[in-house]
Parts: sequence; structure tokens; C-alpha cells
Amino acid sequence: MLKTPAYAALDATSPLAPFNIERREPGPREVLIDILYCGVCHSDIHQARDGWGGSVFPMVPGHEIVGRVSRVGSQVERFQVGEAVGVGVFVDSCRRCPSCRDGEEQYCDFGMSGTYNSYERDPVEHRFDKSRPTYGGYATMITVDQDYVLRVPEALPLDRAAPLLCAGITTYSPLKHFGVKPGDRVAVVGLGGLGHMAVKLAAAMGAHVTVLSTSESKRADAQALGAQDFASTRDGSVFKEKANTFDFIIDTVSAKHDYNAYLNLLRLDGTMVLVGLPEEPEVVSAGSLTRKRRRLAGSMIGGIRETQEMLDFCAQHGIASDIELIRIEQINEAYERMLRSDVRYRFVIDIDSLRRGGG
Amino acid sequence: MLKTPAYAALDATSPLAPFNIERREPGPREVLIDILYCGVCHSDIHQARDGWGGSVFPMVPGHEIVGRVSRVGSQVERFQVGEAVGVGVFVDSCRRCPSCRDGEEQYCDFGMSGTYNSYERDPVEHRFDKSRPTYGGYATMITVDQDYVLRVPEALPLDRAAPLLCAGITTYSPLKHFGVKPGDRVAVVGLGGLGHMAVKLAAAMGAHVTVLSTSESKRADAQALGAQDFASTRDGSVFKEKANTFDFIIDTVSAKHDYNAYLNLLRLDGTMVLVGLPEEPEVVSAGSLTRKRRRLAGSMIGGIRETQEMLDFCAQHGIASDIELIRIEQINEAYERMLRSDVRYRFVIDIDSLRRGGG
Repeated sequence: MLKTPAYAALDATSPLAPFNIERREPGPREVLIDILYCGVCHSDIHQARDGWGGSVFPMVPGHEIVGRVSRVGSQVERFQVGEAVGVGVFVDSCRRCPSCRDGEEQYCDFGMSGTYNSYERDPVEHRFDKSRPTYGGYATMITVDQDYVLRVPEALPLDRAAPLLCAGITTYSPLKHFGVKPGDRVAVVGLGGLGHMAVKLAAAMGAHVTVLSTSESKRADAQALGAQDFASTRDGSVFKEKANTFDFIIDTVSAKHDYNAYLNLLRLDGTMVLVGLPEEPEVVSAGSLTRKRRRLAGSMIGGIRETQEMLDFCAQHGIASDIELIRIEQINEAYERMLRSDVRYRFVIDIDSLRRGGG
Repeated sequence: MLKTPAYAALDATSPLAPFNIERREPGPREVLIDILYCGVCHSDIHQARDGWGGSVFPMVPGHEIVGRVSRVGSQVERFQVGEAVGVGVFVDSCRRCPSCRDGEEQYCDFGMSGTYNSYERDPVEHRFDKSRPTYGGYATMITVDQDYVLRVPEALPLDRAAPLLCAGITTYSPLKHFGVKPGDRVAVVGLGGLGHMAVKLAAAMGAHVTVLSTSESKRADAQALGAQDFASTRDGSVFKEKANTFDFIIDTVSAKHDYNAYLNLLRLDGTMVLVGLPEEPEVVSAGSLTRKRRRLAGSMIGGIRETQEMLDFCAQHGIASDIELIRIEQINEAYERMLRSDVRYRFVIDIDSLRRGGG
């Protein structure tokens, strides 16, 4: 076993603190990764504070991992030592259900193995092994099966690539799956970690992008990110002015908001996709959907194949996340700032600070 | 003008009663129809009682009209005197917006002219003429532009064809639009006027149909209509047993119910389409959609071209509505019975009873 410095939440109320974990030696088909950067996702906070229930403690969060391969198992042919790689929201799945066979492992019938706050699987039957919790990327190393490791193109800055592993694929996947194409009118609701990636990706796909945000202060940012249009949703007039105008809306907001108001902005046959997860259900009026044969859909990250496609797309289009690089000992302060929406647009932990004994 | 016996609601609380209206002489592109049968749709009650607000009184309801052409305008080439024809939920639209040009007149950007409780349009600009309310099919005659008249195949029994003009197209259109195909697992929620048509149509399309109903007493009917499976939703166990199993759900219920419970029955990429209109909004949890990339959609009747396609499909497959034929003077009693769900599955008025001076 490989002793690995990490940061963990010991329970749902304590601040994160230094914590030592062990990583396994890489098996024949596994890759050992020296973690260089780890993005800080809003779901890290939800889970560390047990906001969705069922959290497993101690918890080492982090599922936007970028690093370099430091060792490979005997049967690993896809990766070489020194190569830049990434690990996203999951590190394993059942490998046998229709979703896994189709490369949509995130929808595994038996549940994916989350990169943290979940369990490893036995290597033969691929069933959850409840004796082996998964620990995430707030750590110096991680051992992952090669089938769940992404190649990070060298054209990408590694620190700014980390958030692509969750925020990037979460927004790329629905844009692709629901067929957004050049000239489509796309609205991005909420300009945070997810929203700012949605703007960049949709713009790179050739869409005409409008940002809908409660913060008038984000107008300039929206344009800098590639949006052609911006509307503040504070005064409500946008809901009249832009009614029936969008082909596609990607809703990244996890705070309470009225789906109907946004659905009414869709034109005939338009789709609104939810990628944020409000803690409480929202109301939907049937008429908001029937009047223009609209669709309200949901989407959750993406599969390994599509995540690789997204990384390659980002490299090709020069897209990475806008980040604020922090040291590991700043993580609790970063959580506080995220809860105040005070980040443009993603915190990324420089894991070298942990390697140097941060904290 | 043509004096026409009818039945009308004079206000939102009075029972329907005999009322005389006038129909215009058919213009060059119009058809005069002797109405033979008119189906009684649940929305007739909603509107006659002003349940959705904005009703126009006096109101002659009825938008499931079947009759025979009795006179044609000089430029009418598509219809001949004596031919069996139908009129559905609308009798005109703007004819210029993208929806109208695409044959999706039900989504007209300027609003369709409902067959009743709406307004005629001027024949040049096709704008609403608020001095000319539309009156529906609880009447002996109607004058309609030929572009909004359907051909009723002679293979169909005319009385049982009437409900196809609303209940039929309302369920046929989403089944077609969302691509239901042979072997698909389709659930029909609610077995009423809409639901019984959805079962027949989905079965004729080759789908494996399951009826989900609160009434265990409808099990035998469901099978007789063509469903392979039936589950009572009363005890709730179905929501566990059939989780993640359906490709498509058509939800015909307009009473309050939990969308999330039904969404969870959809498999990956499944779609649930609402065709009923509950008076209050329902709650939707984002997780019900994101977990399996599900879609919640809405659909509203269908365009003229698709309605004709549906009628031809029904003739080809021997499909018509299951009805209870009533005389016009039974209409108020029929409304009462419909409010108690005491009809299998559609009341149809024999308009000859009105011609003979019914009431």
C-alpha cells in the first residue's frame, strides 16, 4: 500500500483537515497517478456536509483530478509513465449493463463507483466492496483502472483542465446529446462553475449564446466567455421579451427557481436540460410544456468515451476553465466563498501544496 | 345566413340549453357540413364552466365533429357534397407563421381559432375578428374553410370516429412525434377518453402497452383494448416493480398526481409526455430527470396533415373510439357522469336528436 497525504472531512460538520490514506499498488490493468491539480466542485460541499444524505465518512472529496501517470500495471497499454491524465466523477462501474456496454457508465444500472463517497468494486464480479470506500482527489496519488482514466491533451493547461472532468463534461454532454448545432439559440441559466463552461462550449459549437443570470455584474464576464447576449433575470422583463425564442436552455442553477418561467422562453420543440440539482422539487405546469411541445430533460455528467471527446474538443478549441488556484490549506475558506458564489469560476487545488506538507 | 339549432351554455353555471345560432353561407373556399355526430370532450366541461378562465359566452361546445358535406364554395376542389368529413379542435390559424407553414397549426404563433370559445378570422389577413365568436359541434351545421376540414374514411363508423378528432389525434401525435416503434415498452397513465385511444393506437403501432390506472376495475378493459399489461397504481408497489422499464409514457391524467413517481418508471433516455392538463402545477425533482437522462414533454392535439394521417391510420387498423351514443337532451347528465369518470370511454351526441328538435 502507498501512504498518501490527503485532506478529509471526518464528519458532516468539521472543517476539512489533513488525513492520511493508503492507495493500492496498481493491479495489472491499473494506473497510479501523481495528482497535480484537483478542482473544487459544488458537490464536494454538498457531500462533505451530507446535504444529500448517506455520506460516507471520513471523506476525501475531489473528482476533477488531473495528474501524471507514475506507474502502470503489466497489462496497461493505453497509458505510459509521465503522461498527463485525468479522473472524473467515477472510477468504476458494473461494466455489464446496457449503459456500461454503450459507454454511458454514468447511468450504470447498478450504480457507478463515485471517485469519492462511494465504494471500490471487486475486480472479478465488479460488485461494490463495502469494505473499501473510494477517496477522491484532495490527495497526492490515486490508483484507477485504465478504463476509467482520461488522456489530457498536452495543449491544455493542466490546472485549468481539472474542472473539465466534471463541470466540462456535465455541460458538454447535454449540448451534444440534444443536438445543439451552429446557429441555435442557446440560453445558459446561471453563470457559475457549470455555467461558464456551458457558455464556452456552446459558443465553440457555433451556437448563439445568451446568459440569463440574477447578477447584472456578470454581464461583462458573459461576453468575455463568448456569449453574444446577456439578460438579468432580476426584474422579470426578460421572461416576456425573450418568450418563445430559445432552441435550447441549459439550466445550471441549484438554488430554488421557477422552471415554468424558463420553459416559456423555449420555442416550439425546444428543450431545457437540468444539470443543477436543487435540494427541493420545483413546480411544473403541464401547459408550459404542452403549449409548444417543449421538453424538460435532465443530464448527469457523461461517459468515459464522451469525456475523452470533450477533452479533445477543448484542446482543439483552446477551451479550459477560468480558475483561481489555491493551496490545500485554503480549502475551507474556498468552501465558504463558494457558498457566497464568490468564485470566478472554479477553485482548483494545487496538490503540490499538499505534497509539501500543506496544513 | 343559415339558421342552425344548437345547444349552448349561457354562462359558467347554467346547464346547457337549446340555443339558435347562424352559420355563414360557405365562401368560395369553404365547406358547409351537416353535422351527424359530436364527441363530448372533457375540455367541453372545463370551458363551459370557465375552469380555465376567459370563456366566451354564450358558448356552443363541441370539437369532435363528424358529418357530411352539404354544400361547397366555388373554389373547393378537395371535397364533394355527400362526403364524410370531420372537424377537430381548430377551424383556422394565421397560415403564415413557421408553425402554420409546417402544418403544425395547433402551435400557431398567433394562436389557433378554436372550433368554439374562440374567434373567426378575417379571410384576408387571417387576424382574429372579435365580433365573430366560433361555435362548436353541438349544432346541426358548421361552415369551415376547406383547409381545416378532414376527410373521414368510409371504413370508419362515423359515430365512433368523432372522438378521433380530439382524443385520437391528441394521443396519436406524441406517439408518432416521439418515435414510438414496434417493441417499445409504452405505459398509458389513466384509462379514460384519451387513455383508451392511446392504448389502441400504441398497440396498433406495435408497442408493448401497459395501462397504469387507479381503477383495478379497468384491468379487463385494458386488455380488451389491446394492452398486454395492467397495473393498479393504488397500492404503490408498481412504482418499485416497474422502475426503469418504460421507453415512453403517455400521461393522460388531468387530476393531481405525482410526476416524479411516473418519471422513475422510465428507462435511460425515456420520455414521458403530458397530454392532460391538471389545473394546478405539479412538482418535479431534478434528480428524477438527471438520473436517467429522462425527458418530460408536453403535446397538444396535432396539425391538420397529421390528423388526416391519424384518421387514415385508424381506418387501416380498424380503430375507432369506444362510445356511448346519447341524445342532445342528455348532455347535462353526460357532463355529470364524466365528472364521476362514469363513461366508457366517450359520449358522442347523435346530432339527429337536435335536428328533430331535441330538448
